[in-house]
Amino acid sequence: MPKLAIIVGSEKDIPKIDDCIKTLKEFEIDFELKILSAHRTPDETAEFVKNAKSRGIELFICGAGLSAHLPGVVASYTTAPVIGIPFEVKLHGIDSLLSIVNMPAGVPVATVGIDAAKNAAILAAEILSLKYPELSKKIEQKRQEAREKIITKNKELHI
Amino acid sequence: MPKLAIIVGSEKDIPKIDDCIKTLKEFEIDFELKILSAHRTPDETAEFVKNAKSRGIELFICGAGLSAHLPGVVASYTTAPVIGIPFEVKLHGIDSLLSIVNMPAGVPVATVGIDAAKNAAILAAEILSLKYPELSKKIEQKRQEAREKIITKNKELHI
Amino acid sequence: MPKLAIIVGSEKDIPKIDDCIKTLKEFEIDFELKILSAHRTPDETAEFVKNAKSRGIELFICGAGLSAHLPGVVASYTTAPVIGIPFEVKLHGIDSLLSIVNMPAGVPVATVGIDAAKNAAILAAEILSLKYPELSKKIEQKRQEAREKIITKNKELHI
Amino acid sequence: MPKLAIIVGSEKDIPKIDDCIKTLKEFEIDFELKILSAHRTPDETAEFVKNAKSRGIELFICGAGLSAHLPGVVASYTTAPVIGIPFEVKLHGIDSLLSIVNMPAGVPVATVGIDAAKNAAILAAEILSLKYPELSKKIEQKRQEAREKIITKNKELHI
Amino acid sequence: MPKLAIIVGSEKDIPKIDDCIKTLKEFEIDFELKILSAHRTPDETAEFVKNAKSRGIELFICGAGLSAHLPGVVASYTTAPVIGIPFEVKLHGIDSLLSIVNMPAGVPVATVGIDAAKNAAILAAEILSLKYPELSKKIEQKRQEAREKIITKNKELHI
Amino acid sequence: MPKLAIIVGSEKDIPKIDDCIKTLKEFEIDFELKILSAHRTPDETAEFVKNAKSRGIELFICGAGLSAHLPGVVASYTTAPVIGIPFEVKLHGIDSLLSIVNMPAGVPVATVGIDAAKNAAILAAEILSLKYPELSKKIEQKRQEAREKIITKNKELHI
Amino acid sequence: MPKLAIIVGSEKDIPKIDDCIKTLKEFEIDFELKILSAHRTPDETAEFVKNAKSRGIELFICGAGLSAHLPGVVASYTTAPVIGIPFEVKLHGIDSLLSIVNMPAGVPVATVGIDAAKNAAILAAEILSLKYPELSKKIEQKRQEAREKIITKNKELHI
Amino acid sequence: MPKLAIIVGSEKDIPKIDDCIKTLKEFEIDFELKILSAHRTPDETAEFVKNAKSRGIELFICGAGLSAHLPGVVASYTTAPVIGIPFEVKLHGIDSLLSIVNMPAGVPVATVGIDAAKNAAILAAEILSLKYPELSKKIEQKRQEAREKIITKNKELHI
Repeated sequence: MPKLAIIVGSEKDIPKIDDCIKTLKEFEIDFELKILSAHRTPDETAEFVKNAKSRGIELFICGAGLSAHLPGVVASYTTAPVIGIPFEVKLHGIDSLLSIVNMPAGVPVATVGIDAAKNAAILAAEILSLKYPELSKKIEQKRQEAREKIITKNKELHI
Repeated sequence: MPKLAIIVGSEKDIPKIDDCIKTLKEFEIDFELKILSAHRTPDETAEFVKNAKSRGIELFICGAGLSAHLPGVVASYTTAPVIGIPFEVKLHGIDSLLSIVNMPAGVPVATVGIDAAKNAAILAAEILSLKYPELSKKIEQKRQEAREKIITKNKELHI
Repeated sequence: MPKLAIIVGSEKDIPKIDDCIKTLKEFEIDFELKILSAHRTPDETAEFVKNAKSRGIELFICGAGLSAHLPGVVASYTTAPVIGIPFEVKLHGIDSLLSIVNMPAGVPVATVGIDAAKNAAILAAEILSLKYPELSKKIEQKRQEAREKIITKNKELHI
Repeated sequence: MPKLAIIVGSEKDIPKIDDCIKTLKEFEIDFELKILSAHRTPDETAEFVKNAKSRGIELFICGAGLSAHLPGVVASYTTAPVIGIPFEVKLHGIDSLLSIVNMPAGVPVATVGIDAAKNAAILAAEILSLKYPELSKKIEQKRQEAREKIITKNKELHI
Repeated sequence: MPKLAIIVGSEKDIPKIDDCIKTLKEFEIDFELKILSAHRTPDETAEFVKNAKSRGIELFICGAGLSAHLPGVVASYTTAPVIGIPFEVKLHGIDSLLSIVNMPAGVPVATVGIDAAKNAAILAAEILSLKYPELSKKIEQKRQEAREKIITKNKELHI
Repeated sequence: MPKLAIIVGSEKDIPKIDDCIKTLKEFEIDFELKILSAHRTPDETAEFVKNAKSRGIELFICGAGLSAHLPGVVASYTTAPVIGIPFEVKLHGIDSLLSIVNMPAGVPVATVGIDAAKNAAILAAEILSLKYPELSKKIEQKRQEAREKIITKNKELHI
Repeated sequence: MPKLAIIVGSEKDIPKIDDCIKTLKEFEIDFELKILSAHRTPDETAEFVKNAKSRGIELFICGAGLSAHLPGVVASYTTAPVIGIPFEVKLHGIDSLLSIVNMPAGVPVATVGIDAAKNAAILAAEILSLKYPELSKKIEQKRQEAREKIITKNKELHI
Repeated sequence: MPKLAIIVGSEKDIPKIDDCIKTLKEFEIDFELKILSAHRTPDETAEFVKNAKSRGIELFICGAGLSAHLPGVVASYTTAPVIGIPFEVKLHGIDSLLSIVNMPAGVPVATVGIDAAKNAAILAAEILSLKYPELSKKIEQKRQEAREKIITKNKELHI
């Protein structure tokens, strides 16, 4: 069973990843959820990331706002894929987005849209599906459902 | 052997992915390179992406500038991971970045930094390493080399 | 009678085009309204646009937020004029605006202001008036009404 | 034969519309080219636009930089479609783009990308094709050429 | 007695200049208030501005949002000073600010801050004070009051 | 004879006001040019501004880049009109523009466009023309010349 | 006992520095709180800053919004460290941030994040800790508390 | 003798801190220069910062571009003051600036302007002057020199 870690920098960020957690559950992807701050718990963050592989963690989803160093800091301690979610705290999240996405050569972060917690989960599923092909079917199925929902909506339109 | 597809929208974008190609070769990741435009060859793009799986393609790297729809359009036809590279053409690439990263729920694009072709290749390697564990070692090795290069440079500093 | 298609990417965008619909009705321009997502229903979108001409559709109005690929994707399948309305979802709509307006050479989108649904309808009427000259009079009349409303307001000012 | 007017605010803007002029000639669309400034020749601008219809002008293409009021001012005097091209002079053209696109309700400008002179011509052709259907074929043909050029390029790729 | 004209583009903008009106009254500067739209009433706007001098108007204060052409259009018809107030409608008013301030060489607009209606009135008073020196004393007095208010506040601070 | 002061913060800014100086000379407006830094010579700046009136200075033109406090600091010491020119040093001058234009209520700066040195001079002439009506004619004449230059250019156009 | 001055430009800014004041009290750093405006009380500001050293003030914390000249103006009168807090008033505080941070060479302002009043106090403590080493322990202790709070939270997570 | 550490993320950033080094030498402040990357050498960075105090380092100057995590990462390992210099690499350095300045509550970075290496050194001197009062005189002297340079320049002005 695939397994990943979700990391956010503070307790108050947990509601921002609700859709991520819900979607991972739908995909039956196992996950650990941790609160770890790049700046307030740098040692614990390093230790957690370094030990994650030994506990079966295959990728990381990190959400962060403002200076938003968490995804990059996590990426510095692992060669597993790191997905970064920029949270909107100030400046509509453009500061978080730029802090996460513009990583130096050598240490990428797979960045999704501002507050795009659900897409982080889907991207995780897509990545894990390379090793766990049954995930592809689940993603396909969710895409199909979204497609059909739109088709149905069109039939109900009466304007 | 892992295999991916690199797609850019026009011939003149090919120099922008030089570092991506070079890095993929170092990782011994097989790839197809295609010029396909979301707007000028929409049917060919759709067809290529839909048929890619059958040819063994496991993920996509798409570079695009300006409105930069290519990565998102590719993502709409596949559930394989799609990595998007925003190219700087106008507005320092901020238009490309926002066009690529802010995808609607359901269809993510794993976005790397503006013109970050090398990081796109490394992210691809990290993703593929889930299935092809020998890649992890190569990424680790490159990281180690970067680390040692910095350590060496420090020894040479005489200011 | 002139006819066009309005396309939005999701049901929740329909209120955003209320003023567009209302204005088209005032101009007696016939229209089809469709929910079609560039990313969730790419095939249905392509099919709808390719078949639109045969059903008498002469131009397209597409509203989209975030990455906002819909107008450009529609434009890639037709040589009819495509009007794009950037919706404000994140970042005050600047992401949507840039995604829609900065199209590559060869495939333009006639972009109106952020959330400017009414102006999309008026622009559509202006374009259709080339073929349907009676529309010019209606547009003129609406302009005249706006003008007179301002003149009347000035008479009522007592500050 | 279709006819339009191209207006720029100063002589030094003429090179910026080279691609527009070239493309209109390829489409065999007749045009008048005028230098008229919204701010330096407001009366001449008003007069030209008001009289344009009588000389057979069916739409306007206006390019402008900085405050970029020209397209909007032209639109205030006509109900013919007005295409606006934001020129990059300062701030990468974002000032021009916002000045042109965010028009108040009632008076739209069909905005194309920053410095997108060629796309202005193609959009003009698309609009005129409603009345002059032979233009559709020409636009289709140019699209087809662009498509084939990409297909050919792919055959030549040896990387 | 000094006299100026305040122009806004629509009735709904009048509350935005409340502080301007209030401040002008405090300075005993006579003013006319007009609703005139650069785009909806271009001819009335031109006529009003051209005739303003003959009615004793010595400068203009124009408030506008979005594309915000009004101050520039007014400036194109007069050599009297034109003060522009960018209103925040979309994009936090950055579009209005850039549309107003970045005028082409030859036709300046004296731009104040976003929604800075009071400062527009004070700037008007400063300008008029060159001809009407008694205004200088009133401005000085208001400055002095603001200064004393701060000094008093400091005495009341108990933190 | 009208008289004003031009202040810039450093010697290397002097070329940026060449067009301002040239235009003032054409208008026969007398001026003093000073290098005074809001941050490096705060006392000298305060003293100069406070004493300026006694030397016949009727308004100030201040050019500044980066944090661009100079115009606001000058305005804090005088009730004469202060014209601010944002210089482009970093960030395309958007930092300078915002630093100059968004002044707090009570102390306005009449801001012109980024690097718009010529417009600063023309705005100064417009302001001074209230007291010195002969300036109005000169401004009118320059406008007329700009108008005629455009009319002439149109006659020479052969495209 | 270490001592600093907090300066804000108006009474209504005082709530914005609540967290700063609270944190300084926790660190037992003595402070004076003043309302002083760079633009409304320039002389009082200059005088206060020049005399501050004689009253034992060792650094300054200045909060400001909009044009936000206060920190820079304070810095021009002292060689003590000046910490600037950009307040969000308009434009999400990006104007305040740029006005404060982009100081000319020679007169730096130590800028913290937008509305980051608490961090201003911590930075002040870090700076003062060079001279007052007992402060280091207090900062370390607060860091340790933040660290432990996160560790505890992780134990309570049940998702 | 005061001592600090300068850290940059790569060898190619060293020219960007030339003015910092030169200014520190003028102030006779001792410094260590290190190349340490938050992402490529996270362990070495942590170790260096943790051990710095024991070698007498009293504050840190960190320059970084793009995602620019270095100053924040350094700050997470020390309670000594950390000065951050945003380097312009992409997007005119606005990404670096926001990544550095918008730190979460608890871990501030004293941010100076984009590429403001000299100001970083002066701010360091101002901070160190609390403990080493002889530095105050040196800073004062440099200020005085800058002041006199401007006064002299004014005498040489002949325009």
